[in-house]
Amino acid sequence: VRILFLAMMLCALFTSLGEAQVQTPPSLMPLPAKMQPESGLLLIDSSFSVAVTGNHEARLDRAVEIFLGQLRLQTGMPPVVMKVKDSPIAALVIQSASGTKTVQELGEDESYQLDIAGRGARLTAPTTLGVMRGLQTFLQLVQTTAGGFAVPAISIEDSPRFPWRGLMIDSSRHFIPVDVIKRNLDGMAAVKLNVFHWHLSDNQGFRVESKKFPKLQEMGSDGLYYTQDQIRDVIAYARERGIRVVPEFDMPGHSTAWFVGYPELASGPGPYEIERQWGVFDPAMDPTREETYKFLDKFIAEMAGLFPDQFFHIGGDEVNGKQWDANPKIQAFMHGHGLKNDGDLQAYFNQRVQKIVSKHGKTMLGWDEILRPDLPNSIVIQSWRGPDSLAQAAKQGYRGLLSSGYYVDLMWPAARHYANDPMSGAAAQLTPEEQSRILGGEACMWAEYVSPENVDSRIWPRTAAIAERLWSPQDVRDLNSMYQRLEAESRRLDWLGLTHNSSYAPMLRRIAGTDDIAAVKVLGNVLEPVKDYTREETAPAPATSATPLNRMVDAARPESATARLFAESVDAFVAGHARPGTEAQVRSLLGAWRDNQVDLQARFESSMLLKEVAPLSQNLSALGTAGLAAMEYLDRGETAPVAWVSEQLALVEQARKPQAQLLLMIAPSIEKLIRASGGQTGAASLPPK
Amino acid sequence: VRILFLAMMLCALFTSLGEAQVQTPPSLMPLPAKMQPESGLLLIDSSFSVAVTGNHEARLDRAVEIFLGQLRLQTGMPPVVMKVKDSPIAALVIQSASGTKTVQELGEDESYQLDIAGRGARLTAPTTLGVMRGLQTFLQLVQTTAGGFAVPAISIEDSPRFPWRGLMIDSSRHFIPVDVIKRNLDGMAAVKLNVFHWHLSDNQGFRVESKKFPKLQEMGSDGLYYTQDQIRDVIAYARERGIRVVPEFDMPGHSTAWFVGYPELASGPGPYEIERQWGVFDPAMDPTREETYKFLDKFIAEMAGLFPDQFFHIGGDEVNGKQWDANPKIQAFMHGHGLKNDGDLQAYFNQRVQKIVSKHGKTMLGWDEILRPDLPNSIVIQSWRGPDSLAQAAKQGYRGLLSSGYYVDLMWPAARHYANDPMSGAAAQLTPEEQSRILGGEACMWAEYVSPENVDSRIWPRTAAIAERLWSPQDVRDLNSMYQRLEAESRRLDWLGLTHNSSYAPMLRRIAGTDDIAAVKVLGNVLEPVKDYTREETAPAPATSATPLNRMVDAARPESATARLFAESVDAFVAGHARPGTEAQVRSLLGAWRDNQVDLQARFESSMLLKEVAPLSQNLSALGTAGLAAMEYLDRGETAPVAWVSEQLALVEQARKPQAQLLLMIAPSIEKLIRASGGQTGAASLPPK
Repeated sequence: VRILFLAMMLCALFTSLGEAQVQTPPSLMPLPAKMQPESGLLLIDSSFSVAVTGNHEARLDRAVEIFLGQLRLQTGMPPVVMKVKDSPIAALVIQSASGTKTVQELGEDESYQLDIAGRGARLTAPTTLGVMRGLQTFLQLVQTTAGGFAVPAISIEDSPRFPWRGLMIDSSRHFIPVDVIKRNLDGMAAVKLNVFHWHLSDNQGFRVESKKFPKLQEMGSDGLYYTQDQIRDVIAYARERGIRVVPEFDMPGHSTAWFVGYPELASGPGPYEIERQWGVFDPAMDPTREETYKFLDKFIAEMAGLFPDQFFHIGGDEVNGKQWDANPKIQAFMHGHGLKNDGDLQAYFNQRVQKIVSKHGKTMLGWDEILRPDLPNSIVIQSWRGPDSLAQAAKQGYRGLLSSGYYVDLMWPAARHYANDPMSGAAAQLTPEEQSRILGGEACMWAEYVSPENVDSRIWPRTAAIAERLWSPQDVRDLNSMYQRLEAESRRLDWLGLTHNSSYAPMLRRIAGTDDIAAVKVLGNVLEPVKDYTREETAPAPATSATPLNRMVDAARPESATARLFAESVDAFVAGHARPGTEAQVRSLLGAWRDNQVDLQARFESSMLLKEVAPLSQNLSALGTAGLAAMEYLDRGETAPVAWVSEQLALVEQARKPQAQLLLMIAPSIEKLIRASGGQTGAASLPPK
Repeated sequence: VRILFLAMMLCALFTSLGEAQVQTPPSLMPLPAKMQPESGLLLIDSSFSVAVTGNHEARLDRAVEIFLGQLRLQTGMPPVVMKVKDSPIAALVIQSASGTKTVQELGEDESYQLDIAGRGARLTAPTTLGVMRGLQTFLQLVQTTAGGFAVPAISIEDSPRFPWRGLMIDSSRHFIPVDVIKRNLDGMAAVKLNVFHWHLSDNQGFRVESKKFPKLQEMGSDGLYYTQDQIRDVIAYARERGIRVVPEFDMPGHSTAWFVGYPELASGPGPYEIERQWGVFDPAMDPTREETYKFLDKFIAEMAGLFPDQFFHIGGDEVNGKQWDANPKIQAFMHGHGLKNDGDLQAYFNQRVQKIVSKHGKTMLGWDEILRPDLPNSIVIQSWRGPDSLAQAAKQGYRGLLSSGYYVDLMWPAARHYANDPMSGAAAQLTPEEQSRILGGEACMWAEYVSPENVDSRIWPRTAAIAERLWSPQDVRDLNSMYQRLEAESRRLDWLGLTHNSSYAPMLRRIAGTDDIAAVKVLGNVLEPVKDYTREETAPAPATSATPLNRMVDAARPESATARLFAESVDAFVAGHARPGTEAQVRSLLGAWRDNQVDLQARFESSMLLKEVAPLSQNLSALGTAGLAAMEYLDRGETAPVAWVSEQLALVEQARKPQAQLLLMIAPSIEKLIRASGGQTGAASLPPK
C-alpha cells in the first residue's frame, strides 16, 4: 500500500482516472447557475499545480495562494507542494480577462466558468472576483476517492443572482475579536458572500479607535475596541477574499456609548454610562445643535478615510424620541422649523448627515426608518421590516437590501431563512427596472446573546443557506437538497477554523463539569434555544453584557439536526411509507431518550449549569417512553385508549413549554406518534412554543 | 432556576459554601511539593476579582491579565467581569516580594504558596515567576460544583525540583508557524515548564531571518522562516508566561540549509540544495577556514542580540566527518595542528565557537558530542545519550540536561517518559555538589513526522508527564494517579487552543472521506504509530518534507487510552479481581471490535487513505472474535483446547506485526485472554513489535 501511495505522489502532472466514477454528486453551496457533470476525475495529489494566465494582479496571486493553502489543509498536504507554476501547463489553469477596482465596487463582475476534465481544469473569469468565486467552487468539489483526493469532471457556468450578499456582525453588544471576524470572513468567502457589514457602535459599546475623538473608544468601549491598524488589517483580509467592508455607526439613536465621552452630543443631560442591558434606550443625538454636525463632519471624514468602501451605514433605527420630547430647546427648534413630530426631526437629521456623508464621497445606507422622500435616490435602504417595505422603497426609486427574515439571532431553522426571498411579496410585482433596485440582502448577527465562543454557531451553517438564496437562481428551492448540502458545507467550514461545530463539546463539558458528556449530548442534541425574542421576554431578570453565556441555551445549536431527521422518520412512519430500518431507528432513538435521564440524573446535583436542564431531561425521558408505547399500539394495529392518548398529549403539551429558555424539539413528532396511535392520523401538530 | 442563577451572579464578593464538599480530589499536574486539602469551597463567579499587593511590575500585571483571560475561558465569563481591583480586598490576593530580572535567568526563584479558603485565596511568592506558577495551580483547581464554579480550600507550598524544565521544538524539518508555537508556549506554562528550546536550523531548513546573511533564509527555507519581528514577538510571549527561549543553530553538521546560500562555509564543493529527506548527511562546516569563524562571529553577534537568553545552543551532534575526510586541505590542516581524528577537529571547532559565543556574552550549550575536556566548565551538555553520560559530565564539572528518554517523537507511552529520571542510574551515585550540576531536562519534539496539524498531539498530553517528572518531588511516581491527572490536564489544555484532542476527528474525516467516522474511530482508538525509529526503518520508500502527513499513522495518537484501559480490565479479569461491570465492559468492547469491520468494509474501496488500514481492521475484528471466544471458555470454567489456543496465538502473532506503520495495541491483552482460557495464566505477554 505504501508503495502505491508514494508512486501516486510521484506520478505525472495530469492523472486521469479514466472511467472511475464520482462517488457522490457534487455538494455545492450555493448551487451554480448552470452545471453539467461529466465523467472522470481529476486527481489532486502533491503534484497538483496552478498556472495563472491572462491578466495579472497582486490580488489574483494572493487569491491563488489562499486557495492553495485551503486545498493543502483539506487534503493534508505540506506547504512545499502544490505550487503556482510559471508555465501555462498545470493541473488548474486560471485565466482572468481583467483586474479589479482599487476599491471593490458594488456590481463588479463575479461570474466565472469552471471546466474540469480528467486531464486538467480550467477556470476563466472576466475579473479576479470571478476567479475567487470559481476557486471556492473548486474547493467544494474536492472529494475522497479510491485513487486519492480528486475533483469530478464537470462544466460550470456561474454568476450571482444579486450583487449585494452580506453578513452583518454586531461587534457592539458583545465585542468580537479580530481573529473571530477573520474566520467568519473565510466562511463568507466559502459561500460567496461579498459584503461584510460591520455594526461598530451601539448603546453597549463604541468599537473603533477614533484619533480625532479618542474618548469615543476610551470611555465608550470597556477597552474592547479595534485599533485603526486592526480595521485596516480586516479590510485587507476581506479584500483578499473578494469581500467589501461596510461600516455602520448607528445614529441618532443607539448611541449611548458615544455620549459617555461626549455627553454634549446627546439630547438630554449627562453624564452617561455604557448601557449594560439590551433593548431600545432613550438617549439620542441632538439634531438641533450645529455642534453635532461639526462633530459628525469630522468623525465621518476620519471614518470615510479609514473605510474605503463606497457605502457608509448610519443605522437610523429605533429612535424612541423621549429625549427630544423632554428637551424644551429641541421642541422650540422643531416648532421654529415646522417639524411636526420626531419622525420629521429625524428626517431633518438624516438630510444633514446625508450631506456630510456625501461630501466625504460616500453613499449613505440606513435601516428602514431613514426612508423619507426628502432624501436623494442615491441612498440605500436596508429593510428589517420586510420585502413589502423594500418593494415600497424600490417603487420610490430607492435601492434596497433585505434583512428581514435573515436575522440569524432569532434561532430560526435554515429552511425558514431559505424560503425568504427578496423578490417575494410585493417585490414580485415590481417592474424590471424597480426590481433591479433590490440589490440583495444580508444575514444579520445581532449580538445580545453571542460571545466569541458561540458566535460562529449562530452564524453557521445557516448563513450558507441565506448565501444560496442570494447567489443561486430563484428556482433553487429543494429543501432536502439544501439540508444535505448544508451539512456537507458545515463540515467543510470546519477546515477554515470556524467553531460552529467544534465549540459544542467543550461547552457541554463545561456545563456538565465532566469529560464524559455522552448523556449531556443526547439531551443537548434535541434542544434548541427559544425563538424570536422569547429569550429576552422570558428572562426572570434582564440579561446584561456581564451575564455569562455559558448555559445550555448558549451551547445548544439553533437547529437540531437530530430532531429534524427524527421528524422526517416519524412522518414517513406514520404515513406508512417508511424505508426499511426507519422504524428500528426511531425505536432506538426513543429508547435512548427514555434511558438518558438515568445516566444524567447523578450529574444534576454536581453542576449548577446542568441542573437547570433537569426538567428537559425528565421530559425527554417521558416523551421517549410515550413514543415507544405509541409505537407498540401502532405495531399491534390497536387503537390506543382515548384516556391514554389524552394523558400523553397533556404530557407533550407540558414538554412543549420552554424550560431554561430551551425547547425540546422532538415534542411535535412524539405528538404525531401519540395521535396516530389513537387513530388521529390527520391531526396537525403544532410547533413548539 | 434562572432566578437562582442571577442571584448567584449578583451575590457578595466572597461566597463561602460552608460545609459543601469538594467533589473530586484536586487534579494537579505537576503535583506540588506539599499540599494540604482543607474543607470548603471558594466560589468563582462573575464577581471574582484579583488584587495585587507587594511588589509591582508590568510582567506581573500581564500575568494576572493572562490568568483572568484563561479563567474566563474555562468558566465562560465575558471579558467585562472578573477584574483586577485597586483595593487589597479581593477573592484572590496576590503578593510577590520582588520583581524579576530583565532577562529571565536560570535558577530564578519559582516557589509560591497558595492558600485557599471559603472566604478568599492568597497567593504569595518571592518573585513574579512564583506568582505565575501559582496562578496555573489555581486554574487547575477550578471545578464545577452544585453552586457554580469553585476552587477547593487547600494549602499548597510548592517549588520545582529542577531549575531547567524544557520543551524543544524542531522547526526545521517541518516549519511550525508562530501561532502553533504560541499555543504550545501556553501549554508549557500550564504545566510549569520554563524553557522553550527552539531548534531553528538543520539540513532541511534555516528558519530565522538574518539581516546580515539574508541568503540563509532566502535560499535555505522555501520561504518558510520567522522574521525577526516574529522571533521577538514569540520571546515576549514566552516571557509573559515565565518561559526562557533558547535558540539552537546546529553546527558544524546538520547545516546543509546554511550552505544553499553560503556554499563557501561547507567542507565540500557546492552547490547545495535544501535536504528533502531525513537522516544524517555529509555536509559540515569547514573548521579550518578563518572565514568560517568570521561568518559565525557576525552571525552569532546578530543572533545574540535577537535572543536575549543567557544560553546559546550550538547543536554539535551527529557529524559523520565524510566531507572532512574527503577534503585534502582539511586533512592537511588536521595534520598541521596535531588533530588526530574528526572528533579532535570538531573539538577544535567547538573551542573556537565557544570563544565567539562567550565574546557575545552567552553561555554555550550543546548535545553530548561537544563534551571534551578542552572546553571550559561553563558550558552545558544536553544529553541524548542517557543519564549515565550526564553523570559523567557532572563528575567532570559540567552542567547538564537530560533529553534521552524524553524524545516525544518516539511515540512512547507517558509512563515510560515518566519513569525516566535525570537522577537515576549513575547520577544517583553523584555527590550533592555533582548532582547540583544536573539542571533538569527537556522533552524533544523532533519534526520528521509532524505538521502544524498534528504536532500538538505528539507533544501533548505526554509532555505534561515529563513536566511533572522535572517539577515534582522524585517520589511522585504513582502511575494510576499520573494517568488520571494526565487525562484531566489533557482536556484542560484544550481551552488553550492546543489541538492534540481536537485534530483527531477532522483528520479521521479526511482519511475516511465521510463525516460518519464512528467506525473509523473505533479502529483508530486502538492504534498507535510504530515506536522508536521504526517508521523510518520500515518505510518502503524514504519519506521527504513533501510527503503528506495525512495518513492514519499521522492521526493515531501516540498512546491509546482505550488499549491501556482495556489492558487494565483484562489484567483484573484474568487475575480474578475484576470489579463488577468490568467483564461486561470487556465483552462490549470485544463485540464492538468484532463487528467494526462490517461497518468499515464499504469505505475501504472509496478512500485510498483508509484502504491501507484494512488489514488492521480485519485483525481487530479477528481479535475481537478470539477474545470473546476465550471469555466463553473462562466463563464456562473450561480449558480451551490446545489446538484452538495455538491457532489463536498465531493470529495474535500476526496481528502484532505493524501494518501501515501502525500497531494494534490490544493484541497483548487478547493474548492474555487466550492464554488464560488455555490455562496458561502465568504466561507473560510481549508488547507489540
